[in-house]
Amino acid sequence: MAVYTEVSDEALAAFLTDYDIGAAVAFRGIAEGVENSNFSLRTTGGDYILTLYEKRVDPADLPWFLGLMEHLATRGITCPLPVRARDGNALRHLAGKHASVTTFLPGVWPRRVRPEHCAPVGAALASLHRAGADYAPTRANALGPAGWRPLLDRSLPGADGVQPGLGAELSAALEGILAAWPTGLSVGHIHADLFPDNVFFLDNALSGLIDFYFAATDILAYDLAVCLNAWCFEQDFAFNVTKARAMLQAYQAARPLSPAELAALPVLCQGAAIRFALTRLYDWINTPAGALVTRKDPLEYIRRLRFFLAAKDVHALGL
Amino acid sequence: MAVYTEVSDEALAAFLTDYDIGAAVAFRGIAEGVENSNFSLRTTGGDYILTLYEKRVDPADLPWFLGLMEHLATRGITCPLPVRARDGNALRHLAGKHASVTTFLPGVWPRRVRPEHCAPVGAALASLHRAGADYAPTRANALGPAGWRPLLDRSLPGADGVQPGLGAELSAALEGILAAWPTGLSVGHIHADLFPDNVFFLDNALSGLIDFYFAATDILAYDLAVCLNAWCFEQDFAFNVTKARAMLQAYQAARPLSPAELAALPVLCQGAAIRFALTRLYDWINTPAGALVTRKDPLEYIRRLRFFLAAKDVHALGL
Repeated sequence: MAVYTEVSDEALAAFLTDYDIGAAVAFRGIAEGVENSNFSLRTTGGDYILTLYEKRVDPADLPWFLGLMEHLATRGITCPLPVRARDGNALRHLAGKHASVTTFLPGVWPRRVRPEHCAPVGAALASLHRAGADYAPTRANALGPAGWRPLLDRSLPGADGVQPGLGAELSAALEGILAAWPTGLSVGHIHADLFPDNVFFLDNALSGLIDFYFAATDILAYDLAVCLNAWCFEQDFAFNVTKARAMLQAYQAARPLSPAELAALPVLCQGAAIRFALTRLYDWINTPAGALVTRKDPLEYIRRLRFFLAAKDVHALGL
Repeated sequence: MAVYTEVSDEALAAFLTDYDIGAAVAFRGIAEGVENSNFSLRTTGGDYILTLYEKRVDPADLPWFLGLMEHLATRGITCPLPVRARDGNALRHLAGKHASVTTFLPGVWPRRVRPEHCAPVGAALASLHRAGADYAPTRANALGPAGWRPLLDRSLPGADGVQPGLGAELSAALEGILAAWPTGLSVGHIHADLFPDNVFFLDNALSGLIDFYFAATDILAYDLAVCLNAWCFEQDFAFNVTKARAMLQAYQAARPLSPAELAALPVLCQGAAIRFALTRLYDWINTPAGALVTRKDPLEYIRRLRFFLAAKDVHALGL
């Protein structure tokens, strides 16, 4: 739930005088999101999202994120467009935090994924990858493979308390994944967190991609592996090959996967599964048991990991 | 933080087909509020708030609340107007909960109260009291004086753990308040929770009153006592007589207080202070210490209570 910082009405009014978007007409905190404080802001000029960046985001990365969003938006990707203040800056300060204003995107994120959502997501991801190709600055993926071993080490002492044997299972899986991790695949800017709550639909068409604050420069096909994890499992953790096929085919229609990318897809999916298993495990162990914030169950990604560890090739993923 | 129940997009779409307000264009959880799940809903027909009623609200009271809001809105009070579905009902079901759609009110609630907010609040409260006069159904105030002793009894075992001596202080104060509680004052429908986060302003004018889910039928001047508690103290718990005077004078301009109401105002303020002290104390004791939900400090209202216990008459309140 995502309002960690309150903004006084005077501070908001003063902040808006530096922009050309008019004065505030409505201002409500948004419940979705866990990293930053987000507000729905209506001004006399239109609808916007105001974001205050909280401590989990490195301020040094903010210009890169905002620059990427602006780059993508101006190339036709329906993502939030950072609004520049009159001084030309999109990154400003409010209530003691770094802050930005971005355009409001219509749409509703799918609380339950249906097969017909998956092709638009695949197509949008490929478009994002293509549109990002000429954004020159890069950002290392802190939650990419180099980050997984340290993350596991910090959770190992508590892992077996979550499920007996979990520490050993994750250690063995991670060793195999890192040993098999592909090199030489196409690298570019990836969203890295394109879960259903970051994708809006309107009248069954994809209307927006949001939350670029995990974006990084990494293997493009890994982004597809994240989406296969996030969109293609049923409630009972059965992998839905119909959803996966729709996503992969739509992706390939806009950006064909090379033979090497196709061959690497199972291990990329294993990597994506263990990445979310590890961050959720860390948060699970370090969130007080009585906390009312919803801890996301790491075991949901252990289940996905097991599926992908058993997947021999891309045919097991629906292609 | 207020999204306890998720609504699938199919369920939302099906729900909206029973209304004449068009299809969903945007749907975001609202962070404000602690009792119910609230969503900002934009449809092809306009902007609305969708509320799912959670367990702290008695479903039997919902028709009364919605009826009061409709009554007030049609008499010019800027409060949410419940939208009736095509079958004529404003109270419906969604995602296993009772649900309503109400109109969206523009405005921003004041994160920091300034003196110029207080007259509009007093005037709006008086208008609300007058507009409610011909709403015939009544609702007993579960958090009125009859509820305070049981509430204290449930918190007494933990009270001294919050602050040594707190149990005895509250018991003595409550005994005095209940003994001095006035009878014969004008009774009507009160908001009973008109805190700053329930009042919107736009261009320095009051633009909306929201959250009627503590409303009840009780002493009208008690509602003013709640507002004096909620709006007229500084951060250091100093009572700001300038704010109080502005609020009281503006109230009286629309609904003059009788000599008996004026004489009773100090004890009514004591009652309002102890009411919020008691509910906060109860929640404080019964919320896990590690919970990320913000527990509201009961001692803030003990401080107010002490001020009002020392207030001899209405002159001490600024009149």
